[in-house]
Amino acid sequence: MTSLEELETEETVTCLHITLYHPRQEEKQIFRNLNFLKREQLRADEVAKFGRDTNICHYNLMDSRVSRVQFALQFFRQLNNSELGFEIKNMSKRSKLIVDNLELDYLNKVDLPHKCLIRFGDYQLLIQRQEGESVDYFETRFELAQDSLLQERHLPLMQPIPESGISPSLNSQGVKPIEIDENDV
Amino acid sequence: MTSLEELETEETVTCLHITLYHPRQEEKQIFRNLNFLKREQLRADEVAKFGRDTNICHYNLMDSRVSRVQFALQFFRQLNNSELGFEIKNMSKRSKLIVDNLELDYLNKVDLPHKCLIRFGDYQLLIQRQEGESVDYFETRFELAQDSLLQERHLPLMQPIPESGISPSLNSQGVKPIEIDENDV
Repeated sequence: MTSLEELETEETVTCLHITLYHPRQEEKQIFRNLNFLKREQLRADEVAKFGRDTNICHYNLMDSRVSRVQFALQFFRQLNNSELGFEIKNMSKRSKLIVDNLELDYLNKVDLPHKCLIRFGDYQLLIQRQEGESVDYFETRFELAQDSLLQERHLPLMQPIPESGISPSLNSQGVKPIEIDENDV
Repeated sequence: MTSLEELETEETVTCLHITLYHPRQEEKQIFRNLNFLKREQLRADEVAKFGRDTNICHYNLMDSRVSRVQFALQFFRQLNNSELGFEIKNMSKRSKLIVDNLELDYLNKVDLPHKCLIRFGDYQLLIQRQEGESVDYFETRFELAQDSLLQERHLPLMQPIPESGISPSLNSQGVKPIEIDENDV
C-alpha cells in the first residue's frame, strides 16, 4: 500500500467504486472488515481477492456461506488500445458469479464492463470504474447500499438500459445508487 | 503442492510442457532453480509467476536482466465450452513479451494458444498444453533445449505453420523440439 504522495509523477489512478448490498448486513455485519468511503491503493500486480479466508483475501466477507476465495479482480491493460481495465474470475466451486446477466462458473473469467452488477448468493456489488492514468496502482472505494441494487440495473426483468437517464454520473462522492427517483427509470 | 495420490477422484491433470532455451544457459546456469523432467502440481487458483524475485516467483530465473516478475500464467475455464486453458500476462515494464507473433506490453494479457513460443530478451519458451480433466490442479514440466526454438515455430520468417508435418506429437515423454528432422520442415 503506497500513499499518493509517494508516486513519482502526478497522475490519476484508476478507481473501482464498489457499492455493496446484502439483505442481512445490518444483522450479521458481514462487511465489518471493509473500509468504507475511503480510497485504498493496490499495486497493479496485486490480485484483489474477495472471500472468507482472511489469510488469502484482501477484502474479507464475514459470512460462513461465502467461499474461502469467492472471486478475484485483476488489473490489466487492453491489448489494442492500452485502456486500463479489470478482469473478474469466479474462484468459488459452490456458487455462480453473475456479472450483469452473464453467469460465471468456477474458474470462468470475463473482462469487467465499465459499470456492472456482480451477484452471488444474496450479495450484490455495483462496480463502476473511474478512469485513471497510472499503470503502477489502482484503487478501490467501498460504499454501503441500504436497498437492493437490482432496480438500478433492471436485472430481474432483463430490460435494456437506456443510454441516458438512469445512471447517476460518478463524482468524487462515488456512486449513489439509492438516490434514483422513480421518474428517472 | 499435492501428490496425485491425494486427489479425491482419479482424473487426469492439465499439464504445461515447457521447453526452455537461452543462448547463455550453459555459461550462466540461468535455469538452475528449476526442476527439469519432473511434473510439478499447482493449485488451480495459484498464479505461476516467472521472474527474478524468489519471494514472489514460483519459477525463478537467475538473471539480473530479468524483471522481478517477468510474466504470469493463470489457469482458467473457457466461458462457453468449459475447456481448461491458461492466460499469460506480461508483468515486466522493461521488456515486451512475445506470444508467437503477438507483442504484449506491460499488463497486457492473452489466452495461451494450445502450442506457442514465448519470447522476451534472449529467452525462448515453447509451451504445449496437454489436456486434463481436473479443475483443482494443473501441472508444469520443464525441459531444456540445446538449440534455439525459433526454427520450430518458423517465427523469424512469419511463415504459416502447416496443419501437419511440423509439430511432433506430444507424448508422455513431453515435447522433443530438437529432434525435428530437416525433412519434416
